[in-house]
Amino acid sequence: MDQDPATALQRFCLTIAYDGRSFEGWQSQPGGNTIQDRLEAAIQSICPEIDTVQGSGRTDAGVSADGQVAHFDAPANWSMTAEHWQRAINTQLPPTIRIMKTQEVSGGFHARFSPESKTYCYEIWTGPVLPPTLAGLAWHRPSIGDLQAFQESISSFEGTHDFRAFAATRKDGKDDRRNTVRTISEATVEKEGDLLSISVTGNGFLYKMVRFLVGSAAEVARGKLRRERIEDLLKSGGETGKAPFCAPSEGLRLVKVRYPDLNGGS
Amino acid sequence: MDQDPATALQRFCLTIAYDGRSFEGWQSQPGGNTIQDRLEAAIQSICPEIDTVQGSGRTDAGVSADGQVAHFDAPANWSMTAEHWQRAINTQLPPTIRIMKTQEVSGGFHARFSPESKTYCYEIWTGPVLPPTLAGLAWHRPSIGDLQAFQESISSFEGTHDFRAFAATRKDGKDDRRNTVRTISEATVEKEGDLLSISVTGNGFLYKMVRFLVGSAAEVARGKLRRERIEDLLKSGGETGKAPFCAPSEGLRLVKVRYPDLNGGS
Repeated sequence: MDQDPATALQRFCLTIAYDGRSFEGWQSQPGGNTIQDRLEAAIQSICPEIDTVQGSGRTDAGVSADGQVAHFDAPANWSMTAEHWQRAINTQLPPTIRIMKTQEVSGGFHARFSPESKTYCYEIWTGPVLPPTLAGLAWHRPSIGDLQAFQESISSFEGTHDFRAFAATRKDGKDDRRNTVRTISEATVEKEGDLLSISVTGNGFLYKMVRFLVGSAAEVARGKLRRERIEDLLKSGGETGKAPFCAPSEGLRLVKVRYPDLNGGS
Repeated sequence: MDQDPATALQRFCLTIAYDGRSFEGWQSQPGGNTIQDRLEAAIQSICPEIDTVQGSGRTDAGVSADGQVAHFDAPANWSMTAEHWQRAINTQLPPTIRIMKTQEVSGGFHARFSPESKTYCYEIWTGPVLPPTLAGLAWHRPSIGDLQAFQESISSFEGTHDFRAFAATRKDGKDDRRNTVRTISEATVEKEGDLLSISVTGNGFLYKMVRFLVGSAAEVARGKLRRERIEDLLKSGGETGKAPFCAPSEGLRLVKVRYPDLNGGS
Protein backbone atom coordinates (compact mmCIF):
# COMPACT_ATOMS: atom_id res chain seq x y z
CA MET A 1 0.00 0.00 0.00
CA ASP A 2 2.52 2.59 -1.16
CA GLN A 3 1.56 6.22 -0.70
CA ASP A 4 2.01 8.94 -3.25
CA PRO A 5 5.37 10.45 -2.19
CA ALA A 6 3.88 13.93 -2.57
CA THR A 7 1.32 13.22 0.15
CA ALA A 8 3.34 10.84 2.35
CA LEU A 9 3.60 12.06 5.92
CA GLN A 10 5.97 11.67 8.84
CA ARG A 11 4.43 11.86 12.32
CA PHE A 12 6.41 13.47 15.14
CA CYS A 13 5.60 13.28 18.82
CA LEU A 14 6.60 16.24 21.02
CA THR A 15 7.04 16.36 24.79
CA ILE A 16 6.32 19.96 25.79
CA ALA A 17 6.94 21.93 28.99
CA TYR A 18 5.31 25.30 29.62
CA ASP A 19 4.82 27.94 32.26
CA GLY A 20 1.05 28.28 32.46
CA ARG A 21 1.25 31.79 33.93
CA SER A 22 1.98 33.25 30.51
CA PHE A 23 -0.82 31.64 28.47
CA GLU A 24 -4.57 31.24 28.11
CA GLY A 25 -4.37 27.47 28.37
CA TRP A 26 -3.58 24.81 25.77
CA GLN A 27 -6.52 24.93 23.41
CA SER A 28 -6.39 27.16 20.33
CA GLN A 29 -8.64 30.24 20.49
CA PRO A 30 -9.39 32.90 17.88
CA GLY A 31 -6.69 35.50 18.49
CA GLY A 32 -5.78 33.64 21.64
CA ASN A 33 -2.41 33.47 23.33
CA THR A 34 -2.54 29.71 23.87
CA ILE A 35 0.14 27.02 23.87
CA GLN A 36 -1.42 25.29 20.85
CA ASP A 37 -1.58 28.60 18.89
CA ARG A 38 2.05 29.40 19.69
CA LEU A 39 3.16 25.88 18.80
CA GLU A 40 1.27 25.81 15.50
CA ALA A 41 2.62 29.26 14.58
CA ALA A 42 6.17 28.09 15.35
CA ILE A 43 5.82 24.91 13.28
CA GLN A 44 4.07 26.67 10.39
CA SER A 45 6.81 29.31 10.29
CA ILE A 46 9.15 26.39 9.48
CA CYS A 47 6.80 24.45 7.18
CA PRO A 48 3.62 26.33 6.17
CA GLU A 49 1.98 23.13 4.87
CA ILE A 50 1.61 21.67 8.36
CA ASP A 51 -1.91 22.01 9.65
CA THR A 52 -2.66 21.39 13.31
CA VAL A 53 -0.86 20.11 16.37
CA GLN A 54 -2.87 17.49 18.24
CA GLY A 55 -2.40 17.56 22.02
CA SER A 56 -3.05 14.76 24.53
CA GLY A 57 -5.76 16.97 26.00
CA ARG A 58 -6.43 20.51 27.11
CA THR A 59 -4.96 22.28 30.06
CA ASP A 60 -6.75 25.35 31.46
CA ALA A 61 -5.41 28.90 31.68
CA GLY A 62 -2.80 29.05 34.45
CA VAL A 63 -2.01 25.32 34.33
CA SER A 64 1.63 24.43 33.63
CA ALA A 65 3.23 21.31 32.17
CA ASP A 66 6.48 19.39 32.42
CA GLY A 67 5.39 16.74 29.96
CA GLN A 68 2.39 17.60 27.80
CA VAL A 69 2.45 15.45 24.64
CA ALA A 70 1.34 16.39 21.13
CA HIS A 71 1.88 15.18 17.59
CA PHE A 72 1.95 16.71 14.14
CA ASP A 73 2.38 15.42 10.60
CA ALA A 74 5.11 16.75 8.34
CA PRO A 75 5.42 16.12 4.59
CA ALA A 76 7.90 13.22 4.30
CA ASN A 77 9.79 15.07 1.57
CA TRP A 78 10.52 17.85 4.09
CA SER A 79 13.42 15.64 5.28
CA MET A 80 13.90 16.94 8.82
CA THR A 81 14.88 14.58 11.62
CA ALA A 82 13.23 14.68 15.06
CA GLU A 83 16.30 16.45 16.40
CA HIS A 84 16.19 19.08 13.65
CA TRP A 85 12.52 19.72 14.32
CA GLN A 86 13.11 20.14 18.05
CA ARG A 87 15.85 22.71 17.59
CA ALA A 88 13.99 24.59 14.87
CA ILE A 89 10.71 24.77 16.80
CA ASN A 90 12.41 25.88 20.03
CA THR A 91 14.05 28.81 18.25
CA GLN A 92 10.54 29.98 17.23
CA LEU A 93 8.97 29.71 20.69
CA PRO A 94 9.12 32.00 23.74
CA PRO A 95 11.34 30.59 26.56
CA THR A 96 8.18 29.87 28.56
CA ILE A 97 7.34 27.04 26.11
CA ARG A 98 9.99 24.40 25.37
CA ILE A 99 10.02 21.19 23.37
CA MET A 100 11.88 18.89 25.76
CA LYS A 101 11.89 15.79 23.53
CA THR A 102 10.94 14.87 19.96
CA GLN A 103 10.45 11.40 18.49
CA GLU A 104 9.32 10.14 15.10
CA VAL A 105 6.35 7.82 15.63
CA SER A 106 4.21 5.54 13.46
CA GLY A 107 1.03 6.83 11.84
CA GLY A 108 -0.89 4.71 14.36
CA PHE A 109 0.21 6.90 17.25
CA HIS A 110 -2.31 9.52 18.30
CA ALA A 111 -1.54 11.92 21.19
CA ARG A 112 -5.19 12.38 22.12
CA PHE A 113 -6.65 8.93 21.65
CA SER A 114 -3.94 6.56 22.80
CA PRO A 115 -2.72 7.73 26.25
CA GLU A 116 -2.45 4.91 28.74
CA SER A 117 -2.25 7.20 31.76
CA LYS A 118 -1.56 10.77 32.84
CA THR A 119 0.07 12.13 35.98
CA TYR A 120 -0.80 15.55 37.38
CA CYS A 121 0.89 17.31 40.26
CA TYR A 122 -0.85 19.91 42.41
CA GLU A 123 1.24 22.09 44.73
CA ILE A 124 0.05 23.83 47.90
CA TRP A 125 2.21 26.26 49.88
CA THR A 126 1.28 26.13 53.57
CA GLY A 127 3.81 28.68 54.93
CA PRO A 128 2.68 32.14 56.05
CA VAL A 129 4.14 33.94 52.99
CA LEU A 130 4.17 32.61 49.40
CA PRO A 131 7.74 32.90 47.98
CA PRO A 132 7.91 34.97 44.75
CA THR A 133 9.24 32.00 42.77
CA LEU A 134 5.99 30.11 43.51
CA ALA A 135 3.69 33.04 42.72
CA GLY A 136 1.16 31.66 40.23
CA LEU A 137 2.62 28.15 40.53
CA ALA A 138 1.17 27.01 43.85
CA TRP A 139 -2.04 27.43 45.81
CA HIS A 140 -1.32 29.51 48.92
CA ARG A 141 -3.12 28.01 51.90
CA PRO A 142 -1.36 29.11 55.11
CA SER A 143 -3.56 26.99 57.35
CA ILE A 144 -4.21 23.68 55.64
CA GLY A 145 -5.74 22.26 58.83
CA ASP A 146 -5.67 18.53 59.52
CA LEU A 147 -2.91 17.20 57.27
CA GLN A 148 -3.65 13.54 58.02
CA ALA A 149 -7.30 14.03 57.05
CA PHE A 150 -6.09 15.72 53.84
CA GLN A 151 -3.80 12.80 53.00
CA GLU A 152 -6.49 10.22 53.74
CA SER A 153 -8.99 12.09 51.57
CA ILE A 154 -6.54 12.18 48.66
CA SER A 155 -5.81 8.44 49.07
CA SER A 156 -9.53 7.67 49.09
CA PHE A 157 -9.72 8.70 45.42
CA GLU A 158 -7.55 5.73 44.41
CA GLY A 159 -9.42 2.99 42.54
CA THR A 160 -12.16 2.91 39.94
CA HIS A 161 -15.00 5.32 40.68
CA ASP A 162 -17.67 7.34 38.94
CA PHE A 163 -16.13 10.81 39.26
CA ARG A 164 -19.17 12.65 37.83
CA ALA A 165 -19.50 14.74 41.01
CA PHE A 166 -15.86 15.86 40.73
CA ALA A 167 -16.03 17.54 37.34
CA ALA A 168 -17.15 20.79 35.81
CA THR A 169 -19.23 21.15 32.66
CA ARG A 170 -17.35 22.67 29.77
CA LYS A 171 -18.76 25.95 28.54
CA ASP A 172 -18.62 24.74 24.95
CA GLY A 173 -20.54 21.56 25.86
CA LYS A 174 -18.01 19.52 23.88
CA ASP A 175 -17.13 16.94 26.50
CA ASP A 176 -18.58 13.46 26.48
CA ARG A 177 -20.52 12.98 29.73
CA ARG A 178 -21.75 9.47 29.02
CA ASN A 179 -18.85 7.75 30.71
CA THR A 180 -17.56 9.42 33.88
CA VAL A 181 -15.93 6.32 35.37
CA ARG A 182 -12.17 6.66 35.71
CA THR A 183 -9.43 4.68 37.43
CA ILE A 184 -6.94 6.50 39.67
CA SER A 185 -3.98 4.16 40.08
CA GLU A 186 -2.12 6.40 42.52
CA ALA A 187 -2.96 9.48 44.58
CA THR A 188 -0.32 10.58 47.07
CA VAL A 189 0.71 13.59 49.14
CA GLU A 190 4.32 14.51 49.90
CA LYS A 191 5.37 17.21 52.35
CA GLU A 192 8.69 19.00 52.05
CA GLY A 193 8.93 21.89 54.47
CA ASP A 194 5.94 24.13 53.77
CA LEU A 195 5.26 22.62 50.34
CA LEU A 196 2.63 19.91 49.81
CA SER A 197 2.84 18.06 46.49
CA ILE A 198 -0.18 16.03 45.50
CA SER A 199 0.48 13.53 42.71
CA VAL A 200 -2.44 11.87 40.91
CA THR A 201 -2.06 9.24 38.18
CA GLY A 202 -5.06 7.92 36.30
CA ASN A 203 -6.24 6.44 33.01
CA GLY A 204 -8.10 9.65 32.26
CA PHE A 205 -9.45 12.78 33.90
CA LEU A 206 -12.73 14.67 33.62
CA TYR A 207 -12.77 18.45 33.19
CA LYS A 208 -11.19 20.15 36.26
CA MET A 209 -11.24 16.79 38.07
CA VAL A 210 -7.84 17.07 39.80
CA ARG A 211 -8.76 20.53 41.07
CA PHE A 212 -12.07 19.18 42.45
CA LEU A 213 -10.27 16.29 44.17
CA VAL A 214 -7.72 18.63 45.78
CA GLY A 215 -10.33 21.25 46.68
CA SER A 216 -12.60 18.66 48.32
CA ALA A 217 -9.72 17.15 50.34
CA ALA A 218 -8.78 20.70 51.45
CA GLU A 219 -12.35 21.23 52.69
CA VAL A 220 -12.10 18.01 54.71
CA ALA A 221 -8.73 19.15 56.13
CA ARG A 222 -10.17 22.41 57.43
CA GLY A 223 -13.20 20.67 58.90
CA LYS A 224 -15.76 22.08 56.47
CA LEU A 225 -16.65 18.72 54.89
CA ARG A 226 -17.03 15.25 56.37
CA ARG A 227 -14.86 12.47 54.92
CA GLU A 228 -18.02 10.37 54.43
CA ARG A 229 -19.39 13.01 52.04
CA ILE A 230 -16.52 12.28 49.63
CA GLU A 231 -17.27 8.57 49.82
CA ASP A 232 -20.97 9.26 49.19
CA LEU A 233 -20.18 11.38 46.14
CA LEU A 234 -17.88 8.67 44.75
CA LYS A 235 -20.55 6.01 45.29
CA SER A 236 -23.58 7.94 44.12
CA GLY A 237 -21.97 9.32 40.96
CA GLY A 238 -24.09 12.39 41.68
CA GLU A 239 -24.57 15.39 39.46
CA THR A 240 -21.67 17.16 37.83
CA GLY A 241 -19.97 19.70 40.04
CA LYS A 242 -21.56 18.47 43.26
CA ALA A 243 -18.15 18.45 44.98
CA PRO A 244 -17.98 21.50 47.19
CA PHE A 245 -14.82 23.14 46.01
CA CYS A 246 -12.58 23.43 42.95
CA ALA A 247 -8.97 24.38 43.83
CA PRO A 248 -7.47 27.23 41.73
CA SER A 249 -5.71 26.45 38.46
CA GLU A 250 -2.30 27.88 39.43
CA GLY A 251 -1.24 24.91 41.56
CA LEU A 252 -1.77 22.39 38.74
CA ARG A 253 0.88 20.89 36.47
CA LEU A 254 0.60 18.11 33.88
CA VAL A 255 3.69 16.04 34.68
CA LYS A 256 3.56 13.06 32.34
CA VAL A 257 1.48 11.40 29.64
CA ARG A 258 2.21 7.72 29.02
CA TYR A 259 1.53 5.76 25.82
CA PRO A 260 1.74 1.97 25.44
CA ASP A 261 3.21 2.31 21.95
CA LEU A 262 5.93 4.85 22.74
CA ASN A 263 9.40 3.68 23.74
CA GLY A 264 10.44 5.04 27.11
CA GLY A 265 7.10 6.78 27.62
CA SER A 266 6.80 10.45 26.86
CA MET B 1 18.99 60.20 76.92
CA ASP B 2 15.24 60.42 76.31
CA GLN B 3 14.08 61.38 72.83
CA ASP B 4 11.27 63.75 72.01
CA PRO B 5 8.34 61.31 71.56
CA ALA B 6 7.34 63.13 68.37
CA THR B 7 10.66 62.24 66.72
CA ALA B 8 11.34 58.88 68.41
CA LEU B 9 11.79 56.11 65.87
CA GLN B 10 11.38 52.36 65.74
CA ARG B 11 13.71 50.47 63.38
CA PHE B 12 12.42 47.41 61.53
CA CYS B 13 14.53 44.88 59.65
CA LEU B 14 12.95 43.13 56.64
CA THR B 15 13.98 39.87 54.98
CA ILE B 16 12.86 40.18 51.36
CA ALA B 17 12.49 37.66 48.54
CA TYR B 18 12.01 38.73 44.92
CA ASP B 19 11.87 37.40 41.40
CA GLY B 20 14.52 39.44 39.59
CA ARG B 21 12.93 38.83 36.17
CA SER B 22 10.27 41.46 36.87
CA PHE B 23 12.46 44.37 38.03
CA GLU B 24 15.31 46.70 37.09
CA GLY B 25 17.39 45.63 40.08
CA TRP B 26 17.34 46.74 43.72
CA GLN B 27 18.53 50.33 43.60
CA SER B 28 15.99 53.14 43.29
CA GLN B 29 15.97 54.88 39.88
CA PRO B 30 14.04 57.92 38.69
CA GLY B 31 10.81 56.42 37.38
CA GLY B 32 12.37 52.99 37.69
CA ASN B 33 10.65 49.71 38.35
CA THR B 34 13.07 48.61 41.06
CA ILE B 35 12.64 46.60 44.26
CA GLN B 36 13.60 49.57 46.43
CA ASP B 37 11.11 51.85 44.64
CA ARG B 38 8.31 49.31 45.01
CA LEU B 39 9.13 48.73 48.66
CA GLU B 40 9.31 52.42 49.53
CA ALA B 41 6.02 53.08 47.71
CA ALA B 42 4.39 50.20 49.63
CA ILE B 43 5.66 51.44 53.00
CA GLN B 44 4.85 55.10 52.27
CA SER B 45 1.30 54.14 51.26
CA ILE B 46 0.94 52.89 54.86
CA CYS B 47 2.89 55.69 56.58
CA PRO B 48 3.77 58.68 54.34
CA GLU B 49 6.29 60.01 56.86
CA ILE B 50 8.71 57.14 56.29
CA ASP B 51 11.58 58.17 54.07
CA THR B 52 13.88 55.52 52.59
CA VAL B 53 14.45 51.80 52.86
CA GLN B 54 18.11 50.97 53.33
CA GLY B 55 19.16 47.67 51.69
CA SER B 56 22.18 45.49 52.53
CA GLY B 57 23.48 46.27 49.05
CA ARG B 58 22.37 46.45 45.45
CA THR B 59 21.39 43.60 43.22
CA ASP B 60 21.49 44.10 39.45
CA ALA B 61 18.59 43.86 37.02
CA GLY B 62 17.67 40.21 36.60
CA VAL B 63 19.15 39.12 39.94
CA SER B 64 16.72 37.44 42.36
CA ALA B 65 16.79 37.10 46.15
CA ASP B 66 15.57 34.67 48.79
CA GLY B 67 16.95 36.74 51.65
CA GLN B 68 17.82 40.36 50.83
CA VAL B 69 17.82 42.43 54.03
CA ALA B 70 16.76 46.05 54.47
CA HIS B 71 15.69 48.35 57.31
CA PHE B 72 13.47 51.38 57.70
CA ASP B 73 12.55 53.71 60.56
CA ALA B 74 8.93 54.25 61.56
CA PRO B 75 7.64 56.93 63.93
CA ALA B 76 7.39 55.19 67.32
CA ASN B 77 3.92 56.67 67.84
CA TRP B 78 2.75 54.80 64.75
CA SER B 79 2.33 51.78 67.04
CA MET B 80 2.58 48.92 64.54
CA THR B 81 4.28 45.65 65.50
CA ALA B 82 6.72 43.85 63.20
CA GLU B 83 3.98 41.38 62.33
CA HIS B 84 1.52 44.16 61.47
CA TRP B 85 4.11 45.81 59.23
CA GLN B 86 4.85 42.56 57.40
CA ARG B 87 1.20 41.89 56.59
CA ALA B 88 0.47 45.49 55.65
CA ILE B 89 3.50 45.83 53.35
CA ASN B 90 2.85 42.50 51.61
CA THR B 91 -0.69 43.57 50.70
CA GLN B 92 0.82 46.59 48.90
CA LEU B 93 3.45 44.67 46.91
CA PRO B 94 3.21 42.59 43.73
CA PRO B 95 3.43 38.81 44.40
CA THR B 96 6.92 38.85 42.84
CA ILE B 97 8.22 40.72 45.93
CA ARG B 98 7.49 39.31 49.39
CA ILE B 99 8.54 40.27 52.90
CA MET B 100 9.40 36.87 54.35
CA LYS B 101 10.28 38.03 57.87
CA THR B 102 10.15 41.26 59.89
CA GLN B 103 11.92 42.06 63.17
CA GLU B 104 12.18 45.15 65.31
CA VAL B 105 15.88 45.99 65.80
CA SER B 106 17.88 48.47 67.81
CA GLY B 107 18.88 51.82 66.31
CA GLY B 108 22.44 50.48 66.12
CA PHE B 109 21.48 47.97 63.46
CA HIS B 110 22.26 49.04 59.90
CA ALA B 111 21.43 46.78 56.94
CA ARG B 112 24.19 48.19 54.75
CA PHE B 113 27.06 48.73 57.16
CA SER B 114 26.85 45.81 59.57
CA PRO B 115 26.60 42.58 57.49
CA GLU B 116 28.94 39.86 58.69
CA SER B 117 28.66 37.79 55.52
CA LYS B 118 26.52 37.22 52.45
CA THR B 119 25.75 34.05 50.52
CA TYR B 120 24.98 34.07 46.81
CA CYS B 121 23.82 31.15 44.70
CA TYR B 122 24.44 30.92 40.96
CA GLU B 123 22.56 28.30 38.94
CA ILE B 124 23.63 26.78 35.62
CA TRP B 125 21.43 24.43 33.58
CA THR B 126 23.58 21.99 31.62
CA GLY B 127 20.80 19.97 29.91
CA PRO B 128 20.11 20.39 26.19
CA VAL B 129 16.85 22.36 26.72
CA LEU B 130 16.22 24.96 29.47
CA PRO B 131 12.92 24.13 31.24
CA PRO B 132 10.38 27.02 31.14
CA THR B 133 10.33 27.27 34.95
CA LEU B 134 14.07 28.15 34.88
CA ALA B 135 13.81 30.67 32.02
CA GLY B 136 15.48 33.82 33.33
CA LEU B 137 16.51 32.08 36.57
CA ALA B 138 19.48 30.01 35.38
CA TRP B 139 22.33 30.34 32.90
CA HIS B 140 21.82 27.85 30.07
CA ARG B 141 25.09 26.18 29.20
CA PRO B 142 24.39 22.84 27.51
CA SER B 143 28.04 21.85 27.37
CA ILE B 144 29.76 22.95 30.53
CA GLY B 145 32.89 20.99 29.61
CA ASP B 146 35.22 19.65 32.30
CA LEU B 147 33.10 19.65 35.45
CA GLN B 148 36.00 18.76 37.73
CA ALA B 149 38.03 21.70 36.43
CA PHE B 150 34.99 23.90 37.01
CA GLN B 151 34.64 22.73 40.61
CA GLU B 152 38.36 23.15 41.29
CA SER B 153 38.31 26.68 39.86
CA ILE B 154 35.37 27.63 42.08
CA SER B 155 37.10 26.16 45.16
CA SER B 156 40.27 28.10 44.34
CA PHE B 157 38.44 31.36 45.14
CA GLU B 158 38.16 30.37 48.82
CA GLY B 159 40.37 32.37 51.18
CA THR B 160 41.45 35.99 51.40
CA HIS B 161 42.44 37.49 48.03
CA ASP B 162 42.58 40.77 46.21
CA PHE B 163 39.59 40.31 43.86
CA ARG B 164 40.23 43.53 41.92
CA ALA B 165 40.48 41.61 38.64
CA PHE B 166 37.09 39.96 39.24
CA ALA B 167 34.98 43.10 39.43
CA ALA B 168 33.36 45.60 37.10
CA THR B 169 33.50 49.36 37.50
CA ARG B 170 30.16 50.93 38.33
CA LYS B 171 28.89 53.35 35.73
CA ASP B 172 28.09 55.92 38.41
CA GLY B 173 31.64 55.66 39.81
CA LYS B 174 30.20 55.40 43.29
CA ASP B 175 32.01 52.33 44.50
CA ASP B 176 35.03 52.48 46.72
CA ARG B 177 37.95 50.87 44.87
CA ARG B 178 40.58 51.45 47.54
CA ASN B 179 40.09 48.11 49.26
CA THR B 180 39.41 45.19 46.95
CA VAL B 181 40.52 42.45 49.34
CA ARG B 182 37.71 40.11 50.35
CA THR B 183 37.49 36.79 52.19
CA ILE B 184 35.48 33.96 50.66
CA SER B 185 34.78 31.49 53.47
CA GLU B 186 33.08 28.92 51.24
CA ALA B 187 32.74 28.36 47.48
CA THR B 188 31.11 25.07 46.46
CA VAL B 189 29.44 23.43 43.47
CA GLU B 190 26.57 20.96 43.78
CA LYS B 191 25.20 18.94 40.87
CA GLU B 192 21.64 17.63 40.86
CA GLY B 193 20.76 16.12 37.50
CA ASP B 194 21.39 18.82 34.89
CA LEU B 195 21.45 21.66 37.45
CA LEU B 196 24.71 23.04 38.85
CA SER B 197 24.33 25.21 41.96
CA ILE B 198 27.33 27.33 42.89
CA SER B 199 27.20 28.69 46.43
CA VAL B 200 29.60 31.47 47.48
CA THR B 201 29.79 32.92 51.00
CA GLY B 202 32.03 35.87 51.80
CA ASN B 203 32.47 38.88 54.05
CA GLY B 204 31.76 41.17 51.12
CA PHE B 205 31.57 41.22 47.33
CA LEU B 206 32.78 43.66 44.70
CA TYR B 207 30.49 44.78 41.88
CA LYS B 208 29.53 41.74 39.68
CA MET B 209 32.17 39.67 41.52
CA VAL B 210 30.18 36.41 41.79
CA ARG B 211 29.37 36.60 38.08
CA PHE B 212 33.07 37.10 37.24
CA LEU B 213 34.05 34.13 39.44
CA VAL B 214 31.46 31.86 37.79
CA GLY B 215 32.23 33.14 34.28
CA SER B 216 35.97 32.59 34.72
CA ALA B 217 35.47 29.05 36.10
CA ALA B 218 33.20 28.33 33.11
CA GLU B 219 35.99 29.45 30.75
CA VAL B 220 38.40 27.05 32.48
CA ALA B 221 35.82 24.23 32.19
CA ARG B 222 35.50 24.66 28.44
CA GLY B 223 39.26 24.83 27.98
CA LYS B 224 39.42 28.51 27.00
CA LEU B 225 41.37 29.60 30.08
CA ARG B 226 44.19 27.96 32.04
CA ARG B 227 43.61 27.36 35.76
CA GLU B 228 46.92 29.13 36.45
CA ARG B 229 45.56 32.34 34.93
CA ILE B 230 42.95 32.51 37.73
CA GLU B 231 45.70 32.06 40.32
CA ASP B 232 47.76 34.80 38.63
CA LEU B 233 44.82 37.21 38.68
CA LEU B 234 44.16 36.49 42.37
CA LYS B 235 47.83 37.03 43.22
CA SER B 236 48.51 40.06 41.09
CA GLY B 237 45.34 41.93 42.06
CA GLY B 238 45.41 43.15 38.48
CA GLU B 239 43.25 45.81 36.90
CA THR B 240 39.49 45.85 37.34
CA GLY B 241 37.62 43.59 34.95
CA LYS B 242 40.70 41.67 33.82
CA ALA B 243 38.87 38.37 34.33
CA PRO B 244 37.87 37.07 30.92
CA PHE B 245 34.17 36.56 31.37
CA CYS B 246 31.22 37.80 33.42
CA ALA B 247 28.36 35.26 33.62
CA PRO B 248 24.87 36.66 32.89
CA SER B 249 22.78 38.12 35.72
CA GLU B 250 19.85 35.71 35.39
CA GLY B 251 21.57 32.81 37.21
CA LEU B 252 22.33 34.86 40.31
CA ARG B 253 20.36 34.89 43.58
CA LEU B 254 21.17 36.59 46.90
CA VAL B 255 20.40 33.81 49.37
CA LYS B 256 21.29 35.16 52.78
CA VAL B 257 22.74 38.20 54.57
CA ARG B 258 24.04 37.56 58.09
CA TYR B 259 24.46 40.13 60.88
CA PRO B 260 26.28 39.61 64.17
CA ASP B 261 23.71 41.67 66.05
CA LEU B 262 20.58 39.99 64.70
CA ASN B 263 19.05 37.01 66.50
CA GLY B 264 18.81 33.98 64.24
CA GLY B 265 20.51 35.80 61.38
CA SER B 266 18.40 37.24 58.59
